[in-house]
Amino acid sequence: VTDSEQKHRFNQQSLVEMEKRYRTNFINSLSGYKSANLIATLSPEGISNLAIFSSVVHLGADPALVGFINRPHTVERQTLENIYATGSYTINHVQQDFYQPAHHTAARYPADVSEFETVGLTEQYTDFDAPYVANSNIKFGVNFVEKMDIAANKTVLIIGEIVEVLCDQKYISNDGKIDINAAQSVAVSGLDEYHTGNLLGRLPYAKVKKT
Amino acid sequence: VTDSEQKHRFNQQSLVEMEKRYRTNFINSLSGYKSANLIATLSPEGISNLAIFSSVVHLGADPALVGFINRPHTVERQTLENIYATGSYTINHVQQDFYQPAHHTAARYPADVSEFETVGLTEQYTDFDAPYVANSNIKFGVNFVEKMDIAANKTVLIIGEIVEVLCDQKYISNDGKIDINAAQSVAVSGLDEYHTGNLLGRLPYAKVKKT
Repeated sequence: VTDSEQKHRFNQQSLVEMEKRYRTNFINSLSGYKSANLIATLSPEGISNLAIFSSVVHLGADPALVGFINRPHTVERQTLENIYATGSYTINHVQQDFYQPAHHTAARYPADVSEFETVGLTEQYTDFDAPYVANSNIKFGVNFVEKMDIAANKTVLIIGEIVEVLCDQKYISNDGKIDINAAQSVAVSGLDEYHTGNLLGRLPYAKVKKT
Repeated sequence: VTDSEQKHRFNQQSLVEMEKRYRTNFINSLSGYKSANLIATLSPEGISNLAIFSSVVHLGADPALVGFINRPHTVERQTLENIYATGSYTINHVQQDFYQPAHHTAARYPADVSEFETVGLTEQYTDFDAPYVANSNIKFGVNFVEKMDIAANKTVLIIGEIVEVLCDQKYISNDGKIDINAAQSVAVSGLDEYHTGNLLGRLPYAKVKKT
């Protein structure tokens, strides 16, 4: 059996013809492991909101910028409206001991219900303008910077600046790395599969090989 | 010891004052586990290029859209120039048995050198216009759709449409999910730590609890 026979090839036509749910699962798996984070906000009326996102992406360290992709007109719309109204949100790592309630925040609760209460997670406040998830060991406060509309599918990239970090000191190494493995942060694959990490190795800075 | 005493809090001032390398490590860890992918391109002269990215993000399943963040004026600039020139690229999961050569593609090799050859990975071609990494079991061909400039730090979001997928049939379940765990795809934390996944669980679609 040759390599090409072991592989299966899907062309554009076969992707288009996939049944909708099958295609959603298939395409969602393709990007690989995704971060699992809870984004917490306050409505202008002071009602807390909590929603799980697998699209948080590092944008840069200086300034400290982070992005996430938001679908329009979905359950996460409350998150978006609260961010636009208040300018503030927190991003909290989902960790092994609460990934199940974290997943449940994706249910479509009405705006006057706090998902903290519904799923059984605990709010925590500093003097920052949005709530944190007390259950999470790694979390940070973000000020909204900019939104970018993605014309191709009407999703939105939300860009923010990290202005506060709460992290157990024991997870921070001397060079600033945070041991998200020891903290039992989880990764998502597809829509609904959660994983912890198994460290394979920490590799040195890549340099051109001398001949 | 109270909860707030166990945590360590970093405010905006302490983030700004961090030593540059420390800050890079620290902020890079905050977004959580990231996907590890190799992006392969061809230059207009036909020289293949390969670079590792931890910023590939799922944008949508219908149309099948994927994004990645690219820093300007860094090693990945060859990737960007080739995409603009040819309109095509492939995204290939980094997997356990070749994460070390994959990491090494981050070294700053000149444009007339193919990283495939330098790091010892194998090119594979279909009738798609960019090379695949033969070593990878999950990979897809992408046509460039749009670039969006992120004003806040001059990074670029590259958006593309998935038009071909090569994936071992044995990893695809009946509902379309791809078992990236069984395929030994890896995740990255920070800049240089690689992990495989330990499945915690697959959770049902989240629904509002009835009272």
